[in-house]
Amino acid sequence: PASPRPTMEETGEKNGGFDVLYHNMKHGQLATKELAEFVRERAAVEETYSKSMSKLAKMASNGSQLGTFAPMWDVFRVSSDKLALCHLELMKKMNDLIRDINKYGDEQVKTHRKTKEEMVGTVEAVQALQVQSGHLQKSKEGYHTKCLELDRLRKEGAPQKELEKAELKSKKAAESFALYIEKYNRVGGEFEQKMSESAQRFQEIEEAHLRQMKQLIKSYSHSIEDTHVQVGQVHEEFKQNVENIGIDILIQRFAEQKGTGKERPASVGFEEYMAALTPEGGKK
Amino acid sequence: PASPRPTMEETGEKNGGFDVLYHNMKHGQLATKELAEFVRERAAVEETYSKSMSKLAKMASNGSQLGTFAPMWDVFRVSSDKLALCHLELMKKMNDLIRDINKYGDEQVKTHRKTKEEMVGTVEAVQALQVQSGHLQKSKEGYHTKCLELDRLRKEGAPQKELEKAELKSKKAAESFALYIEKYNRVGGEFEQKMSESAQRFQEIEEAHLRQMKQLIKSYSHSIEDTHVQVGQVHEEFKQNVENIGIDILIQRFAEQKGTGKERPASVGFEEYMAALTPEGGKK
Repeated sequence: PASPRPTMEETGEKNGGFDVLYHNMKHGQLATKELAEFVRERAAVEETYSKSMSKLAKMASNGSQLGTFAPMWDVFRVSSDKLALCHLELMKKMNDLIRDINKYGDEQVKTHRKTKEEMVGTVEAVQALQVQSGHLQKSKEGYHTKCLELDRLRKEGAPQKELEKAELKSKKAAESFALYIEKYNRVGGEFEQKMSESAQRFQEIEEAHLRQMKQLIKSYSHSIEDTHVQVGQVHEEFKQNVENIGIDILIQRFAEQKGTGKERPASVGFEEYMAALTPEGGKK
Repeated sequence: PASPRPTMEETGEKNGGFDVLYHNMKHGQLATKELAEFVRERAAVEETYSKSMSKLAKMASNGSQLGTFAPMWDVFRVSSDKLALCHLELMKKMNDLIRDINKYGDEQVKTHRKTKEEMVGTVEAVQALQVQSGHLQKSKEGYHTKCLELDRLRKEGAPQKELEKAELKSKKAAESFALYIEKYNRVGGEFEQKMSESAQRFQEIEEAHLRQMKQLIKSYSHSIEDTHVQVGQVHEEFKQNVENIGIDILIQRFAEQKGTGKERPASVGFEEYMAALTPEGGKK
């Protein structure tokens, strides 16, 4: 009976469905592997970015220490260093996530192996149905042939003995056919039962898989979000630091460092030289 | 007179101060050049990051299209592509900023050249003061020597004629010394005037330079902030998209794609085969 929305079970109603569902489990393993690879690449990207930021910090620290602008380079250096740290931390979180994904991947393989064992009965039911389907077809054809033969003999007005013999054959074929129908229906019922159970199990496995995958993606997303917030704080700090170092402060620092003195040169007078000479010149 | 906080003028009160201030202008040019280099490096870093994100998008688009997880790769692809665009845009903004910095650098060179011409008078005043300082020292020493000589002769009780001659020499040396003092003070006053003007001009140039540099940094900061906001939106979208693709939807899509049929196999009955044979078998 059709449910309001398709489910796994609908994929498994015919013999081929079992294979589709079984192989989908393997696709689940592939998805886990690919997610780990994607996150590994992201980790590498963040590592590279972090290193680039460290290089920028180095560049800022090599900024000329002469001139009024010099203190600004420290603001750039601090900010770049902090950004480098943020992205390095993200790389580490990505590496942690890869471990989680791989751990799940291992569990997944175990679950699938166990499921394979549990589904031996279904595989047998599928095979039995295929076998019975063959028998059914063959006995149907046999019965069909016998009926046609009987019909032909009747039309030809064959002797009674021959007709009786053909009727017996037809009756036996009908009995055999009926037997195979019964067998087919019994095996079919078993198949339906097993297949329904397996489809249910496949669906559970798939749901658990997707739940787990979404959980891993959430962790990915969460780490990136955290870093994004941190990076925002570093930017805010940078802006604030630039704001805080006023032009007057820069000029003041420069004057303090390079200043040659606060006193204006006093004007020279003759008297002091006379006075300076007094000890010698004034002895007279 | 000392002002409440140091200013450029305090750097220029002695002869060496002019050189300090003049060279600081050159440091301003270096700062502009270094800022352009820093922004260029940042642009390169963003370009690399953008390319890495495109690579990640490619990786996501190569994610297996089999299995229930398949539609999630599209969410990763779209997000990575958008991040690549955000950082590419930032790279472009950095390149625009480099152009602005270089443009300012050219103006700066012109301003400094003009300033150098304007300050010829100050340079001359500095040199004149140095020359007069030498003369002053020399005439002071000359006067000193004559006074000592007169003193010695008096102690020795030299003849009146010799004393009168020495007194005349001492008087002449005193007159010359007084003349050099007057000259030195006049040149010193000129120097002070010129130096004060120049220091004021240097301060104006420096303030304008720092104002411009801070403006350029603000533009840098603003571009990074814009990108940060955009990146945040991309993350929010990613999270929302992951949320929106429910596990039931993924299973539904898979069932629709891979489903082998919605109908359960009907059980087989003998009657239908009999009926199927009727046109031939039922003619009797």
